[in-house]
Amino acid sequence: MSRPLSVGVAGLGTVGAGVLKVLRDNAGLISARAGRPIAVTAVSSRDRHKDRGVPVTGLRWYEDPVALVADPGVDVIVETIGGSEGPARALVEAALAAGKPVVTANKALLALHGRKLAQLAEAHNAPLAFEAAVAGGIPAIKAVREGLAGNDIRRVAGILNGTCNYILTEMRLRGLQFAEVLAEAQKLGYAEADPSFDIDGVDAAHKLAILAALAFNRPVDFSELHVEGIRDVSAVDIEMAAALGFRIKLLGIATRTEAGVSARVHPCMVPLDAPIAHVEGVFNAVVAEGDAVGRVVLQGRGAGAGPTASAVVADLVDIARGRTTPVWGASADALSAAPARPMSSHRGAYYLRLMVVDRPGVVADVTAVLRDAKISMESLLQRGRAPGEAVPVVMTTHECEEAAMQAAIRRLSGLDAVLEKPALIRIETL
Amino acid sequence: MSRPLSVGVAGLGTVGAGVLKVLRDNAGLISARAGRPIAVTAVSSRDRHKDRGVPVTGLRWYEDPVALVADPGVDVIVETIGGSEGPARALVEAALAAGKPVVTANKALLALHGRKLAQLAEAHNAPLAFEAAVAGGIPAIKAVREGLAGNDIRRVAGILNGTCNYILTEMRLRGLQFAEVLAEAQKLGYAEADPSFDIDGVDAAHKLAILAALAFNRPVDFSELHVEGIRDVSAVDIEMAAALGFRIKLLGIATRTEAGVSARVHPCMVPLDAPIAHVEGVFNAVVAEGDAVGRVVLQGRGAGAGPTASAVVADLVDIARGRTTPVWGASADALSAAPARPMSSHRGAYYLRLMVVDRPGVVADVTAVLRDAKISMESLLQRGRAPGEAVPVVMTTHECEEAAMQAAIRRLSGLDAVLEKPALIRIETL
Repeated sequence: MSRPLSVGVAGLGTVGAGVLKVLRDNAGLISARAGRPIAVTAVSSRDRHKDRGVPVTGLRWYEDPVALVADPGVDVIVETIGGSEGPARALVEAALAAGKPVVTANKALLALHGRKLAQLAEAHNAPLAFEAAVAGGIPAIKAVREGLAGNDIRRVAGILNGTCNYILTEMRLRGLQFAEVLAEAQKLGYAEADPSFDIDGVDAAHKLAILAALAFNRPVDFSELHVEGIRDVSAVDIEMAAALGFRIKLLGIATRTEAGVSARVHPCMVPLDAPIAHVEGVFNAVVAEGDAVGRVVLQGRGAGAGPTASAVVADLVDIARGRTTPVWGASADALSAAPARPMSSHRGAYYLRLMVVDRPGVVADVTAVLRDAKISMESLLQRGRAPGEAVPVVMTTHECEEAAMQAAIRRLSGLDAVLEKPALIRIETL
Repeated sequence: MSRPLSVGVAGLGTVGAGVLKVLRDNAGLISARAGRPIAVTAVSSRDRHKDRGVPVTGLRWYEDPVALVADPGVDVIVETIGGSEGPARALVEAALAAGKPVVTANKALLALHGRKLAQLAEAHNAPLAFEAAVAGGIPAIKAVREGLAGNDIRRVAGILNGTCNYILTEMRLRGLQFAEVLAEAQKLGYAEADPSFDIDGVDAAHKLAILAALAFNRPVDFSELHVEGIRDVSAVDIEMAAALGFRIKLLGIATRTEAGVSARVHPCMVPLDAPIAHVEGVFNAVVAEGDAVGRVVLQGRGAGAGPTASAVVADLVDIARGRTTPVWGASADALSAAPARPMSSHRGAYYLRLMVVDRPGVVADVTAVLRDAKISMESLLQRGRAPGEAVPVVMTTHECEEAAMQAAIRRLSGLDAVLEKPALIRIETL
């Protein structure tokens, strides 16, 4: 058996401690699969004395994570500090520049600086692995980058944020409003005190940017993405979705056509016969569509110590076995330069909810706006009757262009009888 | 860019021709992902003149597949001949003995001779890859063997035969009997003229044997498996399943406990809240449960030219990149020697259907047999009334031992009022 692979772990939060635990609990199995033992020999964290549920005695200890790189006894760096800047970024850059392999769970870092990090990794021939950055324990990156390598991948999509999926699931099951479920999720620890990264779609967008880069072999570019969160999803939309045969999910969807690549994160109406409609609670799912394979769906736990550590350790086993792949699936000179497509060019079907004054003529005014925008309506539903008061009018449309829909929404918002900003949710078949 | 990887393809049926087509259609993408072009330069097939929908001019042609091995211009052998003996086996053995990497879609070969082939591959340092052997285009082998390498995998299971899943789905949706749907599936080409490999569970068992070997790092052993097919599933069972909140699926399930490994293929009642219950028609699914990751579910197309070729090409890209793994996930000296557990030691809940004469006292006789066998009943349902005639009595049980259940069934079969062999379907929560 070859000599052990010696690992330096930076950051001993939930994920870092989870990595130590999995490497210790399954040491025998992992050594068999890796062809040699994988052992943590050094760590970096601020507090030496905190109880992390896993012993850290006998490990070399560094206050400064970057110091791990200079430790000649460390073969591989595991970065679980988090954040796109600061020590996490400094550590990953220093390790790659020194030619040391890096395993990270840091989606923000990859999404925002992945283009440069890939260049650095290639220039110094240092593997940069990040299975844990997307969809937790689901081997989604391996599946898309290696498992579907024979395919022209046309679409990659998924439920990429467990907090949002949990909130939407609870809203549906218990008929609650967004704010109520969010407050509860914060109490239970399923949502952060500052939940904006999750609920505004930013976290899902980081992951989608990474998946899209892998699927299309194109350097990651976070700035191209269209991002909306779930703050505006109302209990009435969830109720209407059920009535119409849909379920509301926050999806990330990246599509490649002859015209270029589009990537967007927003709430979607998904028909109940789509497998992804049944992925509930904190679970994540990734869907990939290839020309040869058709549609492949992967689901599992998207977060938590165990699932994230599972992905980190899989990357370590790959490195121990010498199984490596360029960051975006191909070397820099072989990456695609396909252009990005703006959201305004998106085509799709829409769900639209207006809160209107219940009085004669309002529906005629509303439908006239859609007609003028050349948007073809599929269904219209007015729920309840309350003459002179606010009632929801819900419409679904046939496929039309996003730009036309946005123009129509501006006109609708200007109508006297329309009392709130119209709610728009895109209908997606996956 | 490195020199091309030169491939010899043996067998130009649906799968072999599919591999040629995918390698040609996506040559640019594949070359970028593999780091070098992958090109078929030689083939073996009997009929040179058959139209396969893909050009074969300019390729070196061999009548005898084994002759591909001796061609110095062939770097890798792709075996798509099929069958566990004869030319497929001879070719794979010859290639490995010559140190040439092999990619195969041949589950029967792997399940029956995989133990020896792994030894041969290791002795000659020749990769043997077989992603296409299990669940078609779903990267299930890569997920289990590499993606979950950090986990103590306790269970691996799946819907592994698309023909059976199609038949069970059609029976349910259209209320038809097994024989009716089978005949139709044969007409449509979804089932073979001799369907026994599929419907008797043998094909699913080949795949499960492979998955279990990978999940538990244990040499494959087909003879250990308990195998039942779907011939005895009746329309009334499917109807009762729906009434009880279940769906009937042919599952392969392999479990590892302290006591050893069990692997079985048989029809199952799956609760509707299990993701796998919603995998319908020709689709396949694989479920893996690890101590760190929890449950991961993968689904997609389990057969067909495109999905199978997708998996073969993924293996070729791995070989082109130098990403290799021992056949059963660890080298021979690191494999597990956990014992096999017999089906009689299985513990689970059961669905039992008896066709009985509708007369007073029958239910008392039946339940007395279960009581004497110490089997605890969960529910009993007698459908319809037809005094003096045959009616179904359906029971579900709490968890009990298979041996006790089989003994009870023997006694039940001997009761006067029981008119047919009792139908037994195991209840599984996945």
